[in-house]
Amino acid sequence: MIQMSLIQIDNYGPWTVTPTPRNESDLQILQAELYADVQRQFATKKGLVFFTRFDNMLAVTNGINREDHFRIQRSIRNRYPITISMGVGTGKTPYESQKIATQVLQEKGGAQSSDRKEILAIDSLVNKEDSYVQMAHIDINGVTESLTDNVPAFDTNFMVNKAQHYLMTELIKKGALLFFIGGDNFMSPCNGLSPKQLKDIIEKIHKEIGIKHKAGVGRSDNAEDAAYSADLGLEVIRQGNNKEIVHVFKDE
Amino acid sequence: MIQMSLIQIDNYGPWTVTPTPRNESDLQILQAELYADVQRQFATKKGLVFFTRFDNMLAVTNGINREDHFRIQRSIRNRYPITISMGVGTGKTPYESQKIATQVLQEKGGAQSSDRKEILAIDSLVNKEDSYVQMAHIDINGVTESLTDNVPAFDTNFMVNKAQHYLMTELIKKGALLFFIGGDNFMSPCNGLSPKQLKDIIEKIHKEIGIKHKAGVGRSDNAEDAAYSADLGLEVIRQGNNKEIVHVFKDE
Amino acid sequence: MIQMSLIQIDNYGPWTVTPTPRNESDLQILQAELYADVQRQFATKKGLVFFTRFDNMLAVTNGINREDHFRIQRSIRNRYPITISMGVGTGKTPYESQKIATQVLQEKGGAQSSDRKEILAIDSLVNKEDSYVQMAHIDINGVTESLTDNVPAFDTNFMVNKAQHYLMTELIKKGALLFFIGGDNFMSPCNGLSPKQLKDIIEKIHKEIGIKHKAGVGRSDNAEDAAYSADLGLEVIRQGNNKEIVHVFKDE
Amino acid sequence: MIQMSLIQIDNYGPWTVTPTPRNESDLQILQAELYADVQRQFATKKGLVFFTRFDNMLAVTNGINREDHFRIQRSIRNRYPITISMGVGTGKTPYESQKIATQVLQEKGGAQSSDRKEILAIDSLVNKEDSYVQMAHIDINGVTESLTDNVPAFDTNFMVNKAQHYLMTELIKKGALLFFIGGDNFMSPCNGLSPKQLKDIIEKIHKEIGIKHKAGVGRSDNAEDAAYSADLGLEVIRQGNNKEIVHVFKDE
Repeated sequence: MIQMSLIQIDNYGPWTVTPTPRNESDLQILQAELYADVQRQFATKKGLVFFTRFDNMLAVTNGINREDHFRIQRSIRNRYPITISMGVGTGKTPYESQKIATQVLQEKGGAQSSDRKEILAIDSLVNKEDSYVQMAHIDINGVTESLTDNVPAFDTNFMVNKAQHYLMTELIKKGALLFFIGGDNFMSPCNGLSPKQLKDIIEKIHKEIGIKHKAGVGRSDNAEDAAYSADLGLEVIRQGNNKEIVHVFKDE
Repeated sequence: MIQMSLIQIDNYGPWTVTPTPRNESDLQILQAELYADVQRQFATKKGLVFFTRFDNMLAVTNGINREDHFRIQRSIRNRYPITISMGVGTGKTPYESQKIATQVLQEKGGAQSSDRKEILAIDSLVNKEDSYVQMAHIDINGVTESLTDNVPAFDTNFMVNKAQHYLMTELIKKGALLFFIGGDNFMSPCNGLSPKQLKDIIEKIHKEIGIKHKAGVGRSDNAEDAAYSADLGLEVIRQGNNKEIVHVFKDE
Repeated sequence: MIQMSLIQIDNYGPWTVTPTPRNESDLQILQAELYADVQRQFATKKGLVFFTRFDNMLAVTNGINREDHFRIQRSIRNRYPITISMGVGTGKTPYESQKIATQVLQEKGGAQSSDRKEILAIDSLVNKEDSYVQMAHIDINGVTESLTDNVPAFDTNFMVNKAQHYLMTELIKKGALLFFIGGDNFMSPCNGLSPKQLKDIIEKIHKEIGIKHKAGVGRSDNAEDAAYSADLGLEVIRQGNNKEIVHVFKDE
Repeated sequence: MIQMSLIQIDNYGPWTVTPTPRNESDLQILQAELYADVQRQFATKKGLVFFTRFDNMLAVTNGINREDHFRIQRSIRNRYPITISMGVGTGKTPYESQKIATQVLQEKGGAQSSDRKEILAIDSLVNKEDSYVQMAHIDINGVTESLTDNVPAFDTNFMVNKAQHYLMTELIKKGALLFFIGGDNFMSPCNGLSPKQLKDIIEKIHKEIGIKHKAGVGRSDNAEDAAYSADLGLEVIRQGNNKEIVHVFKDE
């Protein structure tokens, strides 16, 4: 079972334009620092947060309990001009978990309701015994040589965004999620996805748009260790000159 | 003329896996804080930075000179475990500017070259008289009501990413760029794009994928003021119940 | 028993002037952000860090184990241009604890040795049953009315620094420490100090230099809760119009 | 003439205990990040901020105008739960400047008045021609060998605080200020203080409390460059094996 938390800034849209639109650079700094801050706090308990839409962030939070969530909310309230609400759900797939996490929060009121504030809505938490996270770290083969060092920066960005769109489209069908984590890297919480299925998706996208990915897969009872094993899986592929497409890392 | 700067972390990819892969949450925090930091420094001179791929950021930097760029590089070197290189270019369209900014930096060596470090490659700077920035602030109509409060968080994220992909695809043909700035918001540096062209793009995408956008457009001699006018343009559309699709804001 | 950790930047002095002196504002930002960062990480486990000399910070860390310390070290290494070493000690008084924490670290090499790096030297950790923290939150009576709103800002600063010097001088004799925490506020880890002794110190200083303090005292098995009770003790004194000098807060 | 700005958090004391005392670690993080943030913004214009009491900060701001101050206030309002007011003054000595900066702000209302908010009170700004800043960077001789590596961390801290108290006491008589900047380092804005007077103060303190200081002195039309020259002055003394007590650095 994978546990996911939705972190949502309360009534953020209206705040950004009250009384007049706030300076865009200030909003960008606020959002990036809030993400970094929430990440650091979840990370001390081996969670992993994805910036998603910045005003709505999704996190894999196996092993992180009600009090931990509450303390993060309190810490944000004390240091930011905004507050956050959270929903928490668990499921067999990441898609299912975030769906439940969203629903329990939606039931408490709308994101732009001025009444709803600092909600902590927990549908369920994963037990230690059932805790299981599968992560795939996916990147694009040879992006620095073929793109970064050769085409305009925005074209590279466009290609990475295109890859993201195609990966998301396929993975969501299997109950897996996909998040951009910078550079040419994506992280996919993907409980329930087999290495074969992932390989097929990567090959399909290669045929469709000519972009070649590779993926390291890691498994653990928490997000941090699963992501680390996925990183190691990717290293194994690199050491083998990218001949493998998917490598599931296992400690021996 | 619009001036753009490419900000690139030196030799970042190799660093992230040396000697073993670094903790993913630490990398996420590092990237988000670096972005916030660079933003804050460019913003004191009315520039605006887009996070782009985090290890490669693009910024509109009209009015920001060589010494300003150098001081930002120095400040990053003194406080981060990494250094940054920058390329600066100017052009009639944002696409052209970033293309030149990329080229002058690429000529100094590869992004993952261990020799290339803290390059500041300036092709040209915009004069005060020629300085001109056009920005469009584009958002999705009614995203909170139709998506955020009703469908799973990841589905909303998926739709926003899809919108981004389609907008990028069309805008790049006209020499305009597009950056996600959080929520359901995009900022498009778009010198040379007419309001009619922008309206046509928005209507085309509505037909193709059923997502309805609106756009405020602002113009100034610097990024900050252009973005602010674009925000005000969007407010005008909202006050008119979203009947307009594109509004060019003009101070009267 | 109170547990204290010494957090020391490795070889920091030499780094600040290599190859030439680094920009002072950058160093100030680095130090303040490092403090904020270490604080946030210890705080997720109910520890409390004092900025002390910034390159050497002292923290009350009851309940925080070896792995927690190690993870903080790793996180700093991944995001800063410097690394940190730590020593941990326990004792009946805070003075004793920090003395041991310093010694175990000193034994591993000098603060400016280029060989010594990322040491984690733990003399002992407090058991759950023996864990006990007493904190006094001390402030100056009526500082806003008498000083902030009436005399030059630096004179107020001078008075607060003078108060700190006198408080430190007396408290250290009893095995208690004193840290400035901003405004006119001090926090004193003070296991072993009786309310009577604290009252005597405050009255002595009032006679000597004419500055009148008050103190809330809190007790718990961790730093956060002890500090919070100390805050509540101070609130009780304020509600009684500052007639009490020392109030030990007790939950009823 | 030296220009100083007082930066004061509006109505901060009451906010920290409303509705109940806020978590101490959160307040510490808020204060440190606010300081780092304000520092970074003033530093882009060659100003230098001292943390002072955190809720009241003093800055040397030669060359920084009304709009610059206003933009910093706006940026803080958009990203923090608190707002700041500022007073600006100029004078022949730093003491005089900060006195005026304090007075113009005090005239607008008390620091804990709930009415007073985001005041920007400027008595005067320094002209380019009259702009002059003298800074002394003072440190303690051999603190790492004699203290950091040999006595408990808090004892070193105590000695540094004692040194600060004695330095402040003497310097204020001459119109100079003194700020702790971490480690065993102090920065003294000291327009009007002669090298002979500084040497006499250092020798007097050596006799009184046995602590030996040295000082590099720098002069420029802005805080950053004056501080940098002071750093270089200190390096000259170190290279001469600390035989000099005061060295005024001059570019040749």
